[in-house]
Amino acid sequence: MNVATPIRPAQRLRPDEASIADLTGELTKRFGNRVVTSLAVRQQHAHTTTWLANQPPDIVVLPESAEEVAEIVRLCAARRVPVIPFGTGTSLEGHLNAPFGGVSVDLSLMKRLVAVHPEDLDCVVEPGITRKELNEQLRDTGLFFPIDPGADASLGGMVSTRASGTNAVRYGTMKDNVLALTVVTPDGSVVKTGTRARKSSAGYDLTRLFVGAEGTLGIVTEITLKLHGIPEAISAGICSFPTVKDACDAVIVTIQSGLPIARIELLDEVQVRAVNAYSRLTLPETPLLLFEFHGTDAGVKEQAERFGEICAEYRGGNFEWATRAEERSRLWQARHDVYWASLGLRPGAKGVASDVCVPISRLAECLAETKRDIEEHGMVAPIAGHVGDGNFHVMPLVMLEDPAEVRMAEDFMHRLVERAIAMEGTCTGEHGVGQGKMKYLKAEHGESALGLMRLLKRSIDPDDIMNPGKIVGA
Amino acid sequence: MNVATPIRPAQRLRPDEASIADLTGELTKRFGNRVVTSLAVRQQHAHTTTWLANQPPDIVVLPESAEEVAEIVRLCAARRVPVIPFGTGTSLEGHLNAPFGGVSVDLSLMKRLVAVHPEDLDCVVEPGITRKELNEQLRDTGLFFPIDPGADASLGGMVSTRASGTNAVRYGTMKDNVLALTVVTPDGSVVKTGTRARKSSAGYDLTRLFVGAEGTLGIVTEITLKLHGIPEAISAGICSFPTVKDACDAVIVTIQSGLPIARIELLDEVQVRAVNAYSRLTLPETPLLLFEFHGTDAGVKEQAERFGEICAEYRGGNFEWATRAEERSRLWQARHDVYWASLGLRPGAKGVASDVCVPISRLAECLAETKRDIEEHGMVAPIAGHVGDGNFHVMPLVMLEDPAEVRMAEDFMHRLVERAIAMEGTCTGEHGVGQGKMKYLKAEHGESALGLMRLLKRSIDPDDIMNPGKIVGA
Repeated sequence: MNVATPIRPAQRLRPDEASIADLTGELTKRFGNRVVTSLAVRQQHAHTTTWLANQPPDIVVLPESAEEVAEIVRLCAARRVPVIPFGTGTSLEGHLNAPFGGVSVDLSLMKRLVAVHPEDLDCVVEPGITRKELNEQLRDTGLFFPIDPGADASLGGMVSTRASGTNAVRYGTMKDNVLALTVVTPDGSVVKTGTRARKSSAGYDLTRLFVGAEGTLGIVTEITLKLHGIPEAISAGICSFPTVKDACDAVIVTIQSGLPIARIELLDEVQVRAVNAYSRLTLPETPLLLFEFHGTDAGVKEQAERFGEICAEYRGGNFEWATRAEERSRLWQARHDVYWASLGLRPGAKGVASDVCVPISRLAECLAETKRDIEEHGMVAPIAGHVGDGNFHVMPLVMLEDPAEVRMAEDFMHRLVERAIAMEGTCTGEHGVGQGKMKYLKAEHGESALGLMRLLKRSIDPDDIMNPGKIVGA
Repeated sequence: MNVATPIRPAQRLRPDEASIADLTGELTKRFGNRVVTSLAVRQQHAHTTTWLANQPPDIVVLPESAEEVAEIVRLCAARRVPVIPFGTGTSLEGHLNAPFGGVSVDLSLMKRLVAVHPEDLDCVVEPGITRKELNEQLRDTGLFFPIDPGADASLGGMVSTRASGTNAVRYGTMKDNVLALTVVTPDGSVVKTGTRARKSSAGYDLTRLFVGAEGTLGIVTEITLKLHGIPEAISAGICSFPTVKDACDAVIVTIQSGLPIARIELLDEVQVRAVNAYSRLTLPETPLLLFEFHGTDAGVKEQAERFGEICAEYRGGNFEWATRAEERSRLWQARHDVYWASLGLRPGAKGVASDVCVPISRLAECLAETKRDIEEHGMVAPIAGHVGDGNFHVMPLVMLEDPAEVRMAEDFMHRLVERAIAMEGTCTGEHGVGQGKMKYLKAEHGESALGLMRLLKRSIDPDDIMNPGKIVGA
């Protein structure tokens, strides 16, 4: 297996300047000052928290409805101009870059909570709403949307990257929490992929076709989401371990025992140091598990007791509880800020994000080998992970102006992905493919599966206008 | 909306006799006495528990490996002969019929439990293993596979119909419990759709493309399944209600309260009467909820108490507990036998199965209207349902030799489906489309979504050899 084989250069051509000028005119006629072409705004729309180079689109347009999205897509399709949906710009693998130029469709004006059905535990939203905005608006219903990738991402973006995050170990990923989508397909049609029924066997699963498709098959314009009752009791805390392996083993036993833990996160000692500095905390600078239980009062108490026994068995220290809601928020905010905290470990450096995921039985081994690899190469690379799913992040901090460092980080990333795939894992648990992970798909899926993915792309988007140059490429 | 519009006659032609003779020769040369062409066996392979007419395949072949399946598919593809995968023959909508003849690929010799990974809560199986066989073989591991459609279906069949059943309210459907598949596609390629990682964002969701595809896009030859720990405590029982509406309202409040009930099944008084007669039970002949709790000892006790309070509020009687494992098995066996029990209500009649699913807030209303409809038309049509998901079965008992009765049942089915779709539900919660539900897909999904389904079928299976005449037709 040679996952490092470079992707062949894309076949797609950039639209010529005349097409773009003509399209700008048409869009401006129709959408007025909701069409923006200033360089700063265009660059901001290709910007993601990534180390990949910025490739701005030619035009940014802000639609206000599915019909307007369809209109934009039709105008672009007629000229074979790329269309790149934009939510909040928090993706990590260059998903929003415009390697062939084109139109960034910024969905931030489409952020309505269209309907809440508390009795059915579901709601309907537009794609631009962010997860925090959604939960803010849901507060009075006693319900919440649990998927939490850390960043305050848009729900459209979360659908498109098949996001998960800290709560996935209990509540699943976006794949499990989307009931139906409305999608504008490359020909400008509006497709509704499902109903509000909790389950259906009525034909192909169009919903899951678009969840995780990263805008390469269409633009999501409406989402029906499952909601969950805010638990009667929540308790969160931390536990220190002498080694990452001990912490990992405690996690493995917890998951195997079926304990319905809501969050179980690992920070290694390097990551804890970064978090303490950034978030002004005084966490013990050892490998650490952060955890949270959801349930009834009695249920949460029972879970905590069992988990305590497991941690003790793997040399975990005493639990420190974050009992008040504010303490809990502070703890999770610190967890969510690890990206920014990590950058502080090496001022001037960029973070090379990763998110491999392996079967949990291989997690301790995968982490140990990865830490050894980091040490051998003298890198600064904190580790944090949604370890209940077998998913973790290593972020080497790299001075991009030093080609030797960049090369070292790339080689490290190749080894990390090869290690995960060899352990029956995946090159990306939750960030998605974007541009950054394209080169690993063949090694992970094999030629037949990748061929089938290419066939899907080619059939649904024959002119390759939807976010071209991502996932299966041009 | 006119869901009753007939499907246009299929364009596909039956292969000519010479092709079939030639293919029979080739297959026999290769597979010897694992090729069967006797009429009785062929009819048995088109047989399902359905009222639809039997359309036998031309040939039945029993492969022993994925490579053999691929060989068969290539031989058929070369002659454009249909291929219809066969598990146990328990589907309900004519999924196994061969309207254009062809080869039934009987997977019953491929029933190995290939690997169990207790530490990862997963296993790998061949498609022919049945759910009871699987759970039997898993017993010593302390793990089980929860999806239970009633019939002792094969796992390949369950994947292909996106099966669910009594446990889905707690454990999800097949969509949620398949980690990866190996599939032979129409060109004879072998595609692996995923890894053993619990989650992945590495490209299009090929797994969910094949789950629920009813063999129309390929033949599943290996399945990686999620497993669950056998709960420490299980308790099951029944509760009588004066009306179906009361029972339904109790279910709705239970689900809304987030109570993690493992099973919650409704039988109406007609169904209970049938069950009592067939399974020699003495259940009270009123609307009845059958339920089961899974958890720790304390957790199960707490759930039962809360559920008791809810039932009391909706005029439910006292719980009768099935405390011993044998009593529990007897109760669930009786539930699983409702199809056969119902036939006993009208000897000589056939059952017209249905399985609409609606948002739970509409369930009481949908059931009430349906019961009124049954009464108005003087039909015998017991109702049983996985009501925690909003999914229920009505089975009119029909003398097929009486055209007026058949017409009445068909009209009833149209009204039932129209009612469910009007309530934002689906024409099939778990049985699948097969031949029986094809005519409802346009009303449910709309032209654009149905067009996209057709595009998927046409792209992946351009020669229409995979189970033709099902889901989106020929």
